[in-house]
Amino acid sequence: MHDSDSLGIVSPQRMHFDSPLSLRSGAVLDSFELTYETYGELNPAKSNAVLICHALSGSHHVAGVYADNPKSTGWWNNMIGPGKPIDTRRFFVIGINNLGGCHGSTGPISINSKTGKRYGPDFPLVTTGDWAETYARFADRLGIDCFAAVIGGSLGGMSALQLALDAPERVRHTIVIAAAAKLTAQNIAFNDVARQAILTDPDFYGGDYYSHGTFPRRGLRLARMLGHITYLSDDSMASKFGRELRNGTFAFNFGVEFQIESYLRYQGDKFADQFDANTYLLMTKALDYFDPAQDCDGDLQAAFARAQADFLVLSFSSDWRFSPERSRTIVKALVASKRNVSYAEIPSSHGHDSFLMKDDYYHQLMRAYMHNISI
Amino acid sequence: MHDSDSLGIVSPQRMHFDSPLSLRSGAVLDSFELTYETYGELNPAKSNAVLICHALSGSHHVAGVYADNPKSTGWWNNMIGPGKPIDTRRFFVIGINNLGGCHGSTGPISINSKTGKRYGPDFPLVTTGDWAETYARFADRLGIDCFAAVIGGSLGGMSALQLALDAPERVRHTIVIAAAAKLTAQNIAFNDVARQAILTDPDFYGGDYYSHGTFPRRGLRLARMLGHITYLSDDSMASKFGRELRNGTFAFNFGVEFQIESYLRYQGDKFADQFDANTYLLMTKALDYFDPAQDCDGDLQAAFARAQADFLVLSFSSDWRFSPERSRTIVKALVASKRNVSYAEIPSSHGHDSFLMKDDYYHQLMRAYMHNISI
Repeated sequence: MHDSDSLGIVSPQRMHFDSPLSLRSGAVLDSFELTYETYGELNPAKSNAVLICHALSGSHHVAGVYADNPKSTGWWNNMIGPGKPIDTRRFFVIGINNLGGCHGSTGPISINSKTGKRYGPDFPLVTTGDWAETYARFADRLGIDCFAAVIGGSLGGMSALQLALDAPERVRHTIVIAAAAKLTAQNIAFNDVARQAILTDPDFYGGDYYSHGTFPRRGLRLARMLGHITYLSDDSMASKFGRELRNGTFAFNFGVEFQIESYLRYQGDKFADQFDANTYLLMTKALDYFDPAQDCDGDLQAAFARAQADFLVLSFSSDWRFSPERSRTIVKALVASKRNVSYAEIPSSHGHDSFLMKDDYYHQLMRAYMHNISI
Repeated sequence: MHDSDSLGIVSPQRMHFDSPLSLRSGAVLDSFELTYETYGELNPAKSNAVLICHALSGSHHVAGVYADNPKSTGWWNNMIGPGKPIDTRRFFVIGINNLGGCHGSTGPISINSKTGKRYGPDFPLVTTGDWAETYARFADRLGIDCFAAVIGGSLGGMSALQLALDAPERVRHTIVIAAAAKLTAQNIAFNDVARQAILTDPDFYGGDYYSHGTFPRRGLRLARMLGHITYLSDDSMASKFGRELRNGTFAFNFGVEFQIESYLRYQGDKFADQFDANTYLLMTKALDYFDPAQDCDGDLQAAFARAQADFLVLSFSSDWRFSPERSRTIVKALVASKRNVSYAEIPSSHGHDSFLMKDDYYHQLMRAYMHNISI
C-alpha cells in the first residue's frame, strides 16, 4: 500500500460530546463519543472539508493504514489520497464512525456510565437523522461551518443525503452513490431475515450476550452471508464462481461442494470475527427507517425542496440491491426541486459492491466532480 | 373448495418397492415406499396418465381435499380437476411425494428397518436422476409404459425434464414451468445460506434431532423466510406490503414494524411447524445437483438429444429466481436438438410463485396444450 498516492500511516482520534443528544426514537444520550480520522489539512478558510459517510459495515477508517497492522488499509483507500479522485492535497477528508457503531464511537459495546456495564440492548436505535445531527456537532467543534462535500455509498449515501436535507447550510456538494430514497419491501425483507438470524441465535440473550460471555456468531455469520449475496450481482457470482466444484466431483454431503459456498462461508466467518451483532442490528434498522419523504406524505420532491447543495448521484448497472432506477428516482425529485444535479449510471458487473471498487470511469467521474468544487 | 370443478375428497396411497435402488451418490436403499394420489381414471390403453412432479416444499397432495381437514386443499387444485386445464375427466393424474420427502414417501423421518430408528442424517442425498428412476418403477407397477405428460414447476420442472432425458420412451409430453437448466452461483448461494441456517442450529444435532427430542426450528424458519423472498417479485412485495407499518409509527425496536416483516415471520413459523429440516436440506441439494448438461461437458443441446418428448416451456416475466432467460436457454437447446417445443413467457407480477397461481393466460395455455394431447 506504500504507493506514491497512498496516505501511508494514519491514526484515529476521538471526540467527546457532553451535551445530551435527543434521538428520533425519543431516547436521550447524555454524552457520547465519536471516533474519526482526518487526511490532508484543513485550510485557513475551513472551506475544504469533505465528510465521508460509511455504509452498514464500514467505519471511520476510510483510507491509509495503521502503523501496527500493514493489512489494515482503509475501506476506500483507492478513492482517497494524494492525487486520487478525492485528493487529500486539496481536501481535508474526514471519516467518522457512526454513533451506534462498533469501531470506537459510542455504541452497544460501549460502557454505559450509568450502569458501569456495556449498553447492549439498552443502546437506543438510531437513524440517519441522528447521525446528521452528530455530524453537525462534530463540524462545529472543528469550526467547519459548511462541508465542501459530503459523500457516501449505500447507507453512507443515505446519510449524506440526510445531512443535506436536515442541515442544508452545512453542505455545498452531496455525492450519493449506489443508494435509494428509501428501502423497498424486498430490501426490508432481506434485512429482517438477517436480524431474525441474530435475534433467534440462542447465544444472543436478548442482546446482552456480553454479560453472558457469549456471542451470537452463528446468527451474525448467516446475516453477513445473506447480505453478501445482495452485494454481488448474479453475473459477477457466475463469472467468479459459476458452478465450479471445490473437489471436482459431488461429495453428496453438506460440506463445501461448490466454490461459491466456500467463498460465502469464509466471508461470513471473517465478518463474525470482527463485527458486533448489536451494531449490525442497529445499522439495518437505520436503513429501514431512512425515508426522507415520510414527513412530506411521501412527496420526495417536497422533501428535497429543503436542500441547498449541488448533487452528484451515481449508480451501477448491475446493482440489484439499490438499482439505477432507485438512483433515478432521487435524481428526478432533485431536478423537480430545482437542484443542480449530475447523474451517471456506471456500467459495472460487480453489483452493489461496485461503489467500493476501482473502476476507471467511476473514478474519472469522481475526480472531475471533485476537481470542480471550489475551496 | 366444493365448487363443481373440484375433485372433492381424495386419499393418499402407498406403494412399496422391494428391489434395491442404487442412488447417484453411490448409496443403496434396499427398499423404499412412495406415497401418491391419483385423480381421474386410467383408461384401458393406459395412455392417459399424467405425472405431476412437486417442487421443493410440495407433496403428492396436488389436488382435492382430505376428508378429515377441509383446509387441506392440494397445492395445485386450481390447475387440476374436472374441467380444469389438466382435466381429470380426460386424464389420469398422479401426484407422487419424492423419495426423501416428509409427506409419506421414504425419507429422513422414516424408520430405517436396519436400525429401528429414523434415518435422520443417514438418509442419503438424492438427485432428480434418482427420482426419475423411482417414477419409472412406479409407472411399471401401474402398467403405464408411457406418460401422456409429465409436468412440474420449479424443481418439479427439473424433475420432469430429467425423466424425459433419462427415460425418453416413457414420456410423450413434458411441461417445464418456471425452471432452469441448472442453478447459478447465486441460486446455490441462497440455498447454502438456508442450509447453513439449519446446519448451525444448535438443535440440529448433526441431523439426528429426532433422537434428541429437538427440532432445528429456528434454522428451518430462517431458511423458509429467505426462500420466500426469492419466490416473490420485488414488485409484488411492493404492491402487497410496500413500507406499510404495522402500527402506524416506528416502534424503534426489533418487533414487527413493517407489514412485510409480519408476513415473512408468519410464513417462516408456519412452515417450520409442518416440514422436516432434513428433507429441506435434501431438496435444496437436489436443486444444486441438477445439471443435465454436466455429462455432456456442459453442452445442453447434446444432453437434450436423448429426449423424444414434445415440450412446453413456460416462464413468468417477474420471476427472478428462475427468470425467463433461463427458460429460453432450455428452449434454445431443445430447438437445436430438433425437439418439438412450445414456449411462452407469461406476464405476471407474482415472481417465481406465479406457477402456483391462477392466471387466465397461463391457464388457457395449459388448457390448450393439454387439450391437444392425444390419449
